[in-house]
Amino acid sequence: MSQPSPSFDLPLAIITLAAGKGSRMRSDLPKVLHTLAGKPMLQHVLDSASQLAGARQYVVIGHGAEQVQAAIAQDVCWAIQQQQQGTGHAVAQALPEVPDDALVLVLYGDVPLITPATLSALLQQTHASKGQEGGLALLTIELVDATGYGRIVRDESGNIQAIVEHKDATPEQRAIGEVNTGILAVSASHLRRWLPLLSANNVQGEYYLTDIVALAVAEGIAVRAIHPQHEHEVQGVNDRLQLAGLERVFQRQQADNLLRLGVALADPARLDIRGSLTVGHDVAIDVGCIFEGDVILGDGVTIGPYCVIRNSQLAAATRVEAYCHIDEAAVAQACVVGPYARLRPGADLANGARVGNFCEVKKAHIGAGSKVNHLSYIGDAEVGTNVNIGAGTITCNYDGVNKALTRIGDNAFIGSNSALVAPVAIGANVTIGAGSVIVSPVADHQLAIARGKQRNIDGWQRPVKKC
Amino acid sequence: MSQPSPSFDLPLAIITLAAGKGSRMRSDLPKVLHTLAGKPMLQHVLDSASQLAGARQYVVIGHGAEQVQAAIAQDVCWAIQQQQQGTGHAVAQALPEVPDDALVLVLYGDVPLITPATLSALLQQTHASKGQEGGLALLTIELVDATGYGRIVRDESGNIQAIVEHKDATPEQRAIGEVNTGILAVSASHLRRWLPLLSANNVQGEYYLTDIVALAVAEGIAVRAIHPQHEHEVQGVNDRLQLAGLERVFQRQQADNLLRLGVALADPARLDIRGSLTVGHDVAIDVGCIFEGDVILGDGVTIGPYCVIRNSQLAAATRVEAYCHIDEAAVAQACVVGPYARLRPGADLANGARVGNFCEVKKAHIGAGSKVNHLSYIGDAEVGTNVNIGAGTITCNYDGVNKALTRIGDNAFIGSNSALVAPVAIGANVTIGAGSVIVSPVADHQLAIARGKQRNIDGWQRPVKKC
Amino acid sequence: MSQPSPSFDLPLAIITLAAGKGSRMRSDLPKVLHTLAGKPMLQHVLDSASQLAGARQYVVIGHGAEQVQAAIAQDVCWAIQQQQQGTGHAVAQALPEVPDDALVLVLYGDVPLITPATLSALLQQTHASKGQEGGLALLTIELVDATGYGRIVRDESGNIQAIVEHKDATPEQRAIGEVNTGILAVSASHLRRWLPLLSANNVQGEYYLTDIVALAVAEGIAVRAIHPQHEHEVQGVNDRLQLAGLERVFQRQQADNLLRLGVALADPARLDIRGSLTVGHDVAIDVGCIFEGDVILGDGVTIGPYCVIRNSQLAAATRVEAYCHIDEAAVAQACVVGPYARLRPGADLANGARVGNFCEVKKAHIGAGSKVNHLSYIGDAEVGTNVNIGAGTITCNYDGVNKALTRIGDNAFIGSNSALVAPVAIGANVTIGAGSVIVSPVADHQLAIARGKQRNIDGWQRPVKKC
Repeated sequence: MSQPSPSFDLPLAIITLAAGKGSRMRSDLPKVLHTLAGKPMLQHVLDSASQLAGARQYVVIGHGAEQVQAAIAQDVCWAIQQQQQGTGHAVAQALPEVPDDALVLVLYGDVPLITPATLSALLQQTHASKGQEGGLALLTIELVDATGYGRIVRDESGNIQAIVEHKDATPEQRAIGEVNTGILAVSASHLRRWLPLLSANNVQGEYYLTDIVALAVAEGIAVRAIHPQHEHEVQGVNDRLQLAGLERVFQRQQADNLLRLGVALADPARLDIRGSLTVGHDVAIDVGCIFEGDVILGDGVTIGPYCVIRNSQLAAATRVEAYCHIDEAAVAQACVVGPYARLRPGADLANGARVGNFCEVKKAHIGAGSKVNHLSYIGDAEVGTNVNIGAGTITCNYDGVNKALTRIGDNAFIGSNSALVAPVAIGANVTIGAGSVIVSPVADHQLAIARGKQRNIDGWQRPVKKC
Repeated sequence: MSQPSPSFDLPLAIITLAAGKGSRMRSDLPKVLHTLAGKPMLQHVLDSASQLAGARQYVVIGHGAEQVQAAIAQDVCWAIQQQQQGTGHAVAQALPEVPDDALVLVLYGDVPLITPATLSALLQQTHASKGQEGGLALLTIELVDATGYGRIVRDESGNIQAIVEHKDATPEQRAIGEVNTGILAVSASHLRRWLPLLSANNVQGEYYLTDIVALAVAEGIAVRAIHPQHEHEVQGVNDRLQLAGLERVFQRQQADNLLRLGVALADPARLDIRGSLTVGHDVAIDVGCIFEGDVILGDGVTIGPYCVIRNSQLAAATRVEAYCHIDEAAVAQACVVGPYARLRPGADLANGARVGNFCEVKKAHIGAGSKVNHLSYIGDAEVGTNVNIGAGTITCNYDGVNKALTRIGDNAFIGSNSALVAPVAIGANVTIGAGSVIVSPVADHQLAIARGKQRNIDGWQRPVKKC
Repeated sequence: MSQPSPSFDLPLAIITLAAGKGSRMRSDLPKVLHTLAGKPMLQHVLDSASQLAGARQYVVIGHGAEQVQAAIAQDVCWAIQQQQQGTGHAVAQALPEVPDDALVLVLYGDVPLITPATLSALLQQTHASKGQEGGLALLTIELVDATGYGRIVRDESGNIQAIVEHKDATPEQRAIGEVNTGILAVSASHLRRWLPLLSANNVQGEYYLTDIVALAVAEGIAVRAIHPQHEHEVQGVNDRLQLAGLERVFQRQQADNLLRLGVALADPARLDIRGSLTVGHDVAIDVGCIFEGDVILGDGVTIGPYCVIRNSQLAAATRVEAYCHIDEAAVAQACVVGPYARLRPGADLANGARVGNFCEVKKAHIGAGSKVNHLSYIGDAEVGTNVNIGAGTITCNYDGVNKALTRIGDNAFIGSNSALVAPVAIGANVTIGAGSVIVSPVADHQLAIARGKQRNIDGWQRPVKKC
């Protein structure tokens, strides 16, 4: 998935603008930290940018600066924009740190779906190279309805002459469908010369980065433009409607990628992947599943409907039935999980193990071929191979203060409704009578029973209805 | 959300036609009682109409009249249409009750998404005011394909001349895209004069309300028309396909409204709100959730995927995990609920309480910081603060005849797989041994154990396989 | 749903081509076995074709031939195509078995949604009849963008002259929107004459069936074409994206059919039917439900959200709440199931029975009016009428080797958290004390208790936190 480096050998400085508050998000969270597919929008931009070889990344922050810095797990050079005085001003905050001979690419922390392929193509358009500053490259897009956007005005030869804001545009200019996206690439030396020339003499009182187009044209420096492959690459997020829209675009892309890889998806519109999903051959995923963090599914794994799977590995031929909730678990081959099974962190199922309905497994190894099929809680346990854990079995791993371990040997049979009070060791081939509370160790091959004796009482009178 | 009253001071009489059977619904239920977002279509119309200040509502019913009256929780004036003789005949059934000086607005019980804003604008078009009967105002719409609809025929000045039914239209008239929706406003006195003039001399043998347009034109009374904001406002429901279509339109509107309010929705297309959902700041709702009745979510509440929440309040910072089913419950701040938790009516969680997987809580207070984390049934109970309820605990609240209460004091520790046989009082700081059946009170600081003694038997022979 | 037989009396031979590997599916499964709505694509084609009266079906297989034969539950005549030498070559493999006087219809195992109505209309176009070979009938379609497809070239009278492949087409021909779908009908005797004349002298080195069009035109034999009702009928599946697309088309069709039948569907886009769903009057199905195999829902049945129901019958007025998983179960009238109930094979609920949250019922009869409401496992059991099974009850039906039966008489009350160790018989009107382990029979009207005696110990010291 990594992008071939552009064919020039200039240092590349990527400046991402991420200082805005995002009032229309109506949130305490800075806008660029709002997540798309579980990852902050800004992180999407940085991740895409980092696929451009040799780039040094600069991020201009302002609103919620500390929160943004804390949330981004990436080595970037931070620049603070104390006051929001426009995009030109924002870029100027980062520029002092940028090397003189760098090519600068300007991105936006709220335009999350830009792709490395598009950026790489844009960089080529600068025609910058060692010793040559090159031109200005703009990313533009054709819109059916361009109302409100800055139009790209070209001369009769097609050379870009200016970006004209909607409100300043003539009727002819308003008919232009090509608009500015704000994403651009240009040499640092050009920027150094131009940014101080920008004026805030406009309605907003801001320094607009796009005004450098006029400066380039005035100097006779080439201005070129390309389009992204898809419009959503340049869609910005100003409110949650737009974010929800891009979320669906992104999720659909991920679903389509899985389909191309050979995954059987029951409905690509009902799949959410918030992280990375790695799949083997002939994997099938039913409707409504959610994958978070890093999930790996081996060959022939089938996932039933409405499962939530997070940071887990499921090996080949394992079958997960409906409504399973699996978090930081390792499931080996040919296991059967669910329906309604919950595997919590540290659940570790060996080959052919089964965990069934209304069962919870936490920090426990379930040996090969062992079964925990019904209504059980197995936590802090080491379960051997071919063990049968009866319905309603509970490992009492917590005394209110400390957690303790339950060990169960191979081929043990734990009768239903048993409570195993940890720490306790149950040997191999042990049989536990149903309804027992086991507090002491049980040696191999023993039968352990711990329950009251049955008394049958004749002529029992049921209670009567109280008023 | 309430609509400013129109600027005239006439009494307003809203007549909603709701007498049809709706054969194409293929249902025993009268058509107007079929629900959209959990509410009968007719109720949607009445609720919207009731936002017009000073309106008196009249509903014309026929098929399933008693069922309709029983289902509508609103003070309206009912008129019975014994036989379905057309819209003109239907309006005539209600008209005798309408004051002479009223302005009449005619709505349809199977056109559920009409908005107060559109109705208010329509009323303005009558130009009626005290002492002035005003004209006839029609709600019309432009369709790309108007086949089958009555066309709005205008003269060269744009004045409406007639409504021509599709079958009677000339080729030129059929090219007209503006069609009649049936919704109209006109003074009662005009109606009183016109309705008796309607003729049933047509193929259906019905009295059509729309024929009043010709009467108005003949009298030289102004006929004006406006369009609704959205086409779906005037879409009628004749079958379940159309109802399902409007359900999705309405649900999407609700989702978009939540997004505008600042709610993070993982997928606006997978959200169902059947009632009112009131949200605080920075609420997040994952895919596939269903809200019914009145639900309130406090600041920072997060709802996991596939939850069903009905008539409940969840206070700030509470987190609900996947697959929770919450009905008539009150959950205080910073609670953690689920996954797979069911809160039934009367469940009442104090701050920081936790109810976990495969747990059912009914008519029970769970004190601050207390935990019911696994496989438990807690019903008819008062649980103190910082109590730990072990896995598999059951309050035996029912003896087959009467229900009784379980009380558990602060800081108690209930061992796993315990049965608490109500009525029973367990004191503060009590410890219950795992697997106990508690039938007698336990005083503060006591340990209570009620279980069989463990016996280990050597050399146990497992049963052999029967054929 | 069956299709009226075409009005000719020729034997009908339907040859379905199913030999391709389907590399782009990226699967070990032969392409035609990939499922749509739970059924192999090839089976869809054969099922539709089998609705044409009097047809004998021939299937040409190659890749994964044995797997295909094993998967298809239908009596067809198999022909093996050892090497993939084109559609003409494929048809030639089946032709020797086809009667001389037959009319041949050529279908494709990866074009799954073709309808009998379209095929019947196509057959009519051959104008073949006893003693008359008739012409060649093509199924064609108009595309907005026909790039890549073979164009249908007609003369000025509209007579089909040729099919010209995209790469061979002139600019005028490329402007043609009518394209070949590959589905055609023609007499066996024409085919017998034409197939040996096909040439593989093309870039692919394959024998193209479509080249018979030129032969027909050369012989002056009429070539006619009709269109299918919907484009998706002729859409082929080459990769999983296309399969997922058709899956949604098909599911939506099924949903719309249910709506027309009078089923209330909360969201037709969130319903999956993989088999047959038979419904009574006024059935309601909430969002996200999945039906597999043969499911029958009686009058007034309501299904809550996110249920998975497979091969089961639910009788009138039964209500299924959210998240139920029902497989090979029989549920009588007015039952209440769920939420979170799992009915496994052999679950058999009598009228008015209830199975509630976190309950699993397997191979068990639950008598009329009986309740299994909370956290229970009932397997291999016969439960009488009006029995109350307390929360956490478990039938211990398995001793690790054999399964045994639990019998519970009418009006019995099983206290919570009981374990019933099978084989065991519990009489009518019996009361079982909470927390009991029942190992011996209990006679009618007896109270049985089997639990430890409660001891309360003062001054208990809780464990201390270990480091």
